[in-house]
Amino acid sequence: MDYYVFMREAIKEAEKAAGLGDVPVGAVAVYEGQIIGRGHNGKERKNDPISHAETEALRKAAQYLKTWRLKGVALFVTMEPCPMCAGAILQGRVDTLVFGAWDSRWGACGSTLNLLAPGLYNHKTEVIGGIMEKECAALTENFFRTRRQEPL
Amino acid sequence: MDYYVFMREAIKEAEKAAGLGDVPVGAVAVYEGQIIGRGHNGKERKNDPISHAETEALRKAAQYLKTWRLKGVALFVTMEPCPMCAGAILQGRVDTLVFGAWDSRWGACGSTLNLLAPGLYNHKTEVIGGIMEKECAALTENFFRTRRQEPL
Repeated sequence: MDYYVFMREAIKEAEKAAGLGDVPVGAVAVYEGQIIGRGHNGKERKNDPISHAETEALRKAAQYLKTWRLKGVALFVTMEPCPMCAGAILQGRVDTLVFGAWDSRWGACGSTLNLLAPGLYNHKTEVIGGIMEKECAALTENFFRTRRQEPL
Repeated sequence: MDYYVFMREAIKEAEKAAGLGDVPVGAVAVYEGQIIGRGHNGKERKNDPISHAETEALRKAAQYLKTWRLKGVALFVTMEPCPMCAGAILQGRVDTLVFGAWDSRWGACGSTLNLLAPGLYNHKTEVIGGIMEKECAALTENFFRTRRQEPL
């Protein structure tokens, strides 16, 4: 699987969120080499605390596969998932998680804690972090830098 | 606040899920003494790994308040939230969580781990567990007992 091809698609999703005023995080869900779900953070725009890139992409993948059991699915996301999204990955029994930037504040896949650590729950998700890390980190860094420069 | 009044409403939600073939967990979100969001587990029925009682109730509460910041909201749920839902409570900055039965398998508010432990993330949710514990535990116990008795 070409991690970079799919992470670039996740970055495109993140850019959509930024254009709509939300923190730019994007995700794609991949099954048998094809994208079956896309998502970007829509927390502000939708007034929805559940609307993160990962939950949006996983929900769409589940609709596509007509089951909540996302066996064979790899989730690509520009930032390390938060506890809610790491939990959603467990709930959906996702096989593989590939993420870009680490998140020292909310990251729950190795940074603040690791909800996907082998043996913690009765499901094993393979985790690969740091793919296109610089590009992915730049998304949120640029977003917050621009915000700080805006007049109050 | 009368915990029992609202927990009984959460139990009514759980019973709806059981009637639809989903594990019976129910939740209500309360703001200024009124229920502003209801939810029950719809994972099987909706083919959606994100559809837990808590995420459904919180999303509706956020729609009602027109913000993802659920300040002043108390969430009542029949079972201890899983990592995804404990994370959703953090994402929504929910003030108070009241739950019924403890969950030794998935519970992330004291059982397997405690995502709402003070100081772990930059938000404080007050947690009260074990309200109407027997009635709440009976919901899922009866559901699984009936299932095991069904012919294969």
